[in-house]
Amino acid sequence: MSLSRALSYATAHRSKFLKELKDFIRFPTVSAQPEHAVDMKRCAVWLAANLRQSGLEDAKVIPNGSYPLVYASWRRIPQRPTVLIYGHYDVQPAEPLGEWQSGPFEPAVRGLDLYGRGSSDDKGQMFTQVKALESYLRTSGRLPVNVKCLFEGGEEIGSPHLSRFVVRNKGLLAADVAVISDTSILGSQRPAINYALRGALGLELEVRGPKHDLHSGDFGGAIHNPLQALAEIVASLHDDRGHVAIPGFYRSVRRASQHERAYLAQAAPSDLDVLRSAEAQNGWGETGYSLYERTTLRPALTVNGLVGGYQGPGGKGVIPTRALAKLSFRLVPDQDPSEIDRLFREHIDRITPPTVRSRVRTLAGAKPALSDLRHPAIRAAALAYRKGFGSSPVFLRSGGTIPVVDTFQEVLGVPTVVMGFGLPDGRIHAPNEKLHLPTFYNGIATCIWFLAALTAVQKHPSRRKEMRGMSLEEV
Amino acid sequence: MSLSRALSYATAHRSKFLKELKDFIRFPTVSAQPEHAVDMKRCAVWLAANLRQSGLEDAKVIPNGSYPLVYASWRRIPQRPTVLIYGHYDVQPAEPLGEWQSGPFEPAVRGLDLYGRGSSDDKGQMFTQVKALESYLRTSGRLPVNVKCLFEGGEEIGSPHLSRFVVRNKGLLAADVAVISDTSILGSQRPAINYALRGALGLELEVRGPKHDLHSGDFGGAIHNPLQALAEIVASLHDDRGHVAIPGFYRSVRRASQHERAYLAQAAPSDLDVLRSAEAQNGWGETGYSLYERTTLRPALTVNGLVGGYQGPGGKGVIPTRALAKLSFRLVPDQDPSEIDRLFREHIDRITPPTVRSRVRTLAGAKPALSDLRHPAIRAAALAYRKGFGSSPVFLRSGGTIPVVDTFQEVLGVPTVVMGFGLPDGRIHAPNEKLHLPTFYNGIATCIWFLAALTAVQKHPSRRKEMRGMSLEEV
Repeated sequence: MSLSRALSYATAHRSKFLKELKDFIRFPTVSAQPEHAVDMKRCAVWLAANLRQSGLEDAKVIPNGSYPLVYASWRRIPQRPTVLIYGHYDVQPAEPLGEWQSGPFEPAVRGLDLYGRGSSDDKGQMFTQVKALESYLRTSGRLPVNVKCLFEGGEEIGSPHLSRFVVRNKGLLAADVAVISDTSILGSQRPAINYALRGALGLELEVRGPKHDLHSGDFGGAIHNPLQALAEIVASLHDDRGHVAIPGFYRSVRRASQHERAYLAQAAPSDLDVLRSAEAQNGWGETGYSLYERTTLRPALTVNGLVGGYQGPGGKGVIPTRALAKLSFRLVPDQDPSEIDRLFREHIDRITPPTVRSRVRTLAGAKPALSDLRHPAIRAAALAYRKGFGSSPVFLRSGGTIPVVDTFQEVLGVPTVVMGFGLPDGRIHAPNEKLHLPTFYNGIATCIWFLAALTAVQKHPSRRKEMRGMSLEEV
Repeated sequence: MSLSRALSYATAHRSKFLKELKDFIRFPTVSAQPEHAVDMKRCAVWLAANLRQSGLEDAKVIPNGSYPLVYASWRRIPQRPTVLIYGHYDVQPAEPLGEWQSGPFEPAVRGLDLYGRGSSDDKGQMFTQVKALESYLRTSGRLPVNVKCLFEGGEEIGSPHLSRFVVRNKGLLAADVAVISDTSILGSQRPAINYALRGALGLELEVRGPKHDLHSGDFGGAIHNPLQALAEIVASLHDDRGHVAIPGFYRSVRRASQHERAYLAQAAPSDLDVLRSAEAQNGWGETGYSLYERTTLRPALTVNGLVGGYQGPGGKGVIPTRALAKLSFRLVPDQDPSEIDRLFREHIDRITPPTVRSRVRTLAGAKPALSDLRHPAIRAAALAYRKGFGSSPVFLRSGGTIPVVDTFQEVLGVPTVVMGFGLPDGRIHAPNEKLHLPTFYNGIATCIWFLAALTAVQKHPSRRKEMRGMSLEEV
């Protein structure tokens, strides 16, 4: 039977999979940094070759600016449903480099973990899907369902051009369901299915003051300092109860049902769990919500970077010309990134003092997403986790963002199963990112089971129904 | 007569002086940046050689950590007074480099200005004194008074070790009066003598949050962001009327007399002048004071730099572990840097929220200084300006800081004449710093006259009496 042969192959080839994953991580595919454009292309070519060697057909690199797409498929059973597997091979910047114990692009196994940028987000997780396909194709020469793989190189910068590509290639990408492995479960023995993703809106806020840097002795006290003005503006964006202080910001936030909050209160990470994952002493944020709820049910505004003036050793007596903040919102249904962008710009215009000028640049936006938990693909994923991990998954919201989920729903009419294999302490986006290898191997087994269970999915894509509480009761 | 021969020499050797000044500027003597330690040493050796060639005796480089001192003297008339000429050959960092029209260390003449880092602050200004000495020594072989030159390499970072050197070398530095050319006059036809300098206190404020960078999707909204906490702290350091909101900060600020404020109101730059110098549209700061008063009579707190989180292109979804602000106070009599340091630290301890940790590092401190305007050396300087510029100087306060002035007074009992030749639009500390060459040449003539006029100074140093308003009436 092809399922058991695939599972045996996966168990027997763990060291091969690990070696390939290390090769994959060695490409410094930092999409935010233009100097890595060549690394992006080299990695895409490598990935297409790996898919071809895994037995997929039609593997190719599709030019897409500096962020090439990698596509492959296997479509030999027209009567069966088709699953679109999405992942991303680009990674977050590795800075601050000094805090890594081993090089971010020199993968190293210590204990049960593989360290390296992208080990969890997302090279390791997307590899669970790819190696599950290989396990079938190298043993039985076929898959239980039809498969299309779309791997992109721009997820960490908001997937530029991707939605345009999806719009222009509806036929190429047509499927019955999509699956993404790019989130965390609760623990190595505690699988979870994510039914909600937060949206995102990335912005730069620049404050300009004097035309050139001024001597802070000659002018300190008489000219508004852009660094100070920026600090004042940024500080004013939250009130003292942790709310985002932008008029209208919460207007479209859908309130969670009591049922959902009760379910999450017992299933989701406790405040203590969240603090332990963050290695933090104290929580912070909106009163009236648990820490988990603040990161999933509720939107948030984060300052990702501040820069301006002198940053070298010692001091410099200067009033600089400009200061810059990098900000990002995480949004929840039914907040719309373009509406929040408008509210933010109006608010900044309103509060910028006449002594400086401000400018807002929008970097990226993505809508929040909710899954229909009654979809058969969700049930297939639940079964697969039970088989792969030996325990039933809980259903959780994720605080993160996967921009393409909304695109798949809106353009292709395809619901997405968010089926992650990261762990809460995986340090994604941070120094010393790691992948728990036993969970990686369980993840491959889970993906093998998932492909088998997907045969139950209907061939006719239906519009996603958004979750409104009751569906949690039915699962 | 030696005075007229010196003046003629100075006029005849302008191109020689300019060529030497360009050579001087080519040394990138950025004291704040350790990688320039070798440049500091090379420049000190060059300067000692220049002093020797100018006719001074005893010229030598004195090791002083990474900031060597350069000393030279001419002491052939024991019955005459001795003047200690102080200057600094180190410069501010040249960053941001991209905003320079020509390289900061590639001096270039455009129009009547010499562009380059240090052209005004302080290489060009200290050179007016050195070339005045040369003009006497190369024509008459003697000076009107005894001279000691002390040029240092650490002024821009708060003169580390200098006060210790002065304490240990009281005999070497013993003098009747000191002179420093390191400030601005009002215009090329509007000379000015500075009778007050603000003190300074440079600090770093670091805010630390989570132990490692966190994903802002997973944790945004539940963990206090050090960047946001830093912005909140920095924003809270001023109230909405532009006052520094640190309890006790103004306690020791001496109120200026009505007479002094009235004098400055007509003699000092108007609000419009200050804004024109800053190339700014709007003033800012403490209500109830003119812009000039805010930068001279009143203390100030300036944010010189902010840094933390991601600063590269695009965005990064991160809550960083730490954020840093570089801050500097400018202090006025009778504020004491160590007292303000204590108040600042206590205040930061008090206002740091329990969700983050803060740490303060003190970079440098210098006391404010006031001159006695009745001192004969001040009268000598006033005469010299009249001769060198053709118009009488006004008496002004400077917003800047020259740490050594307080040391000379406290340790050597020597009052300092602050006799500047910079112009308000000299862009000191900023890109495209420049020196107005006609003013440079007038400055040399002024220094020649000053040496001649100093013969009137008494040989017995007396304790400086601090200016309390009435002295302005007597000048």
